[in-house]
Amino acid sequence: MCGACVIEAVKQRMLSRRDVLKAAPLAAAAPAAALSFAHAAEAPRHVVDLTHTVSPEFPTYDGGPAYTVDKRFNFAEHGINAHFVTINEHAGTHLDAPFHFSADGATVDEIPIDKLVCPLAVIDIREKAAADPDASVTPDDIAAWTAAHGPLPDGACVALFSGWADRVESDGFRNADEAGVQHYPGFHAETAAMLLAEGAVAGLASDTLSIDIGASRTFDTHYLWLPAGRWGLEAVAGLDQLPAAGATLIAGAPKRKGGTGGPTRALALV
Amino acid sequence: MCGACVIEAVKQRMLSRRDVLKAAPLAAAAPAAALSFAHAAEAPRHVVDLTHTVSPEFPTYDGGPAYTVDKRFNFAEHGINAHFVTINEHAGTHLDAPFHFSADGATVDEIPIDKLVCPLAVIDIREKAAADPDASVTPDDIAAWTAAHGPLPDGACVALFSGWADRVESDGFRNADEAGVQHYPGFHAETAAMLLAEGAVAGLASDTLSIDIGASRTFDTHYLWLPAGRWGLEAVAGLDQLPAAGATLIAGAPKRKGGTGGPTRALALV
Repeated sequence: MCGACVIEAVKQRMLSRRDVLKAAPLAAAAPAAALSFAHAAEAPRHVVDLTHTVSPEFPTYDGGPAYTVDKRFNFAEHGINAHFVTINEHAGTHLDAPFHFSADGATVDEIPIDKLVCPLAVIDIREKAAADPDASVTPDDIAAWTAAHGPLPDGACVALFSGWADRVESDGFRNADEAGVQHYPGFHAETAAMLLAEGAVAGLASDTLSIDIGASRTFDTHYLWLPAGRWGLEAVAGLDQLPAAGATLIAGAPKRKGGTGGPTRALALV
Repeated sequence: MCGACVIEAVKQRMLSRRDVLKAAPLAAAAPAAALSFAHAAEAPRHVVDLTHTVSPEFPTYDGGPAYTVDKRFNFAEHGINAHFVTINEHAGTHLDAPFHFSADGATVDEIPIDKLVCPLAVIDIREKAAADPDASVTPDDIAAWTAAHGPLPDGACVALFSGWADRVESDGFRNADEAGVQHYPGFHAETAAMLLAEGAVAGLASDTLSIDIGASRTFDTHYLWLPAGRWGLEAVAGLDQLPAAGATLIAGAPKRKGGTGGPTRALALV
């Protein structure tokens, strides 16, 4: 809630309200609202944040700013802080909708919410990614996961865990070479094709900037995966805090009409 | 009503309410609205979308557009669709961070994720809201909820359910009179003060455009609630699909550095 129409009333209100709050130790002394998931008969679950803090400098695929801000209202002058933000839909931890790589696929608002809350299968390729930034998740990596954990659950998201999130504050996240070609892991197109053929998986997630390898010029995985009515979640954080199987992903996604995707607050329940 | 009067009234009300609770074994014995996540062996839970689809025409507090779009890349010309969006942080179903109504409160990225996943207490005031659009959630409404469902759970969000979401496609959502004053329900400042004093509640949610009543010129509830380190969730959808107690809210919130709030994909697990 914000707007120029409120400013005058707010200015008048501020001083008296501040005085009241200073004089109200009951509010200030309120105990922190501790969260408890404990249910008598269950083991407690906890929440893992899978979202990087996005700033204007957050690395993007195209190298441009993640967003710019118009700080239209500030507390000192207007009694409230309220900004207008111009943001690249594909900046920060964000979702790719089918429409991003198709002429008429589902836009981000059209993805049903129950496709965005799903079991999460984490494929750990840190070892090969450390040896080769152009490494990808292959069908063999999926087979190794299913051998250990059983079939991929219906509606699952398969997450590429390369360890790239640790590089997010450095040039090593985009990892561009002298020719400007980026180098980081993604999903091999054969993997996308295999998962589509099997049918169970709703989404792919990656802790890098793309579900394709950074060096891809043809975006094979994007062009297979998204037009098939699936979604992608890119620049995911926190995969190191998750088990390989058993977590529930809340992928979020803005519900903006006609959007090709957008920054989201992804999290997991473990 | 002066701020000091609010605090004094609240203190008085708290004492009497505590006495009522002490003398009410029924309330004490009522099952706590504890949080429970589905495990394999349990009845499956389902997901309820609490988010309106936001379009440029979505009603806003100040009457301006919710956002504008630069469709920078389109599939026919560029092989992908990708947009840049300029959005009011307080448009659509969105979160208010403490910083929105304070000089130095937490910005939206600073709210810990475990404060944004919480038990949801739904306060149904549809009957009085239908009779009076300036109706508010009062301490008595909270007392009625706790009498039926037990104490508000630690870290809970208290949601105002006025039925206003049904009006979102019409002028009846902002419901402005000839003088431009909006009329829709909110939380009474006494309720905010009481909940702060009790300490358990992390967030307020409303199915209207504001946690204050639309006709407020002084934003008492915002100025009490947000500077105390709490958050608000406004223009929520789907409350008619939730039980009064027992749902788990995923409030989401963008993790944008320095933000005063922002559009979010709110949902509930039931």
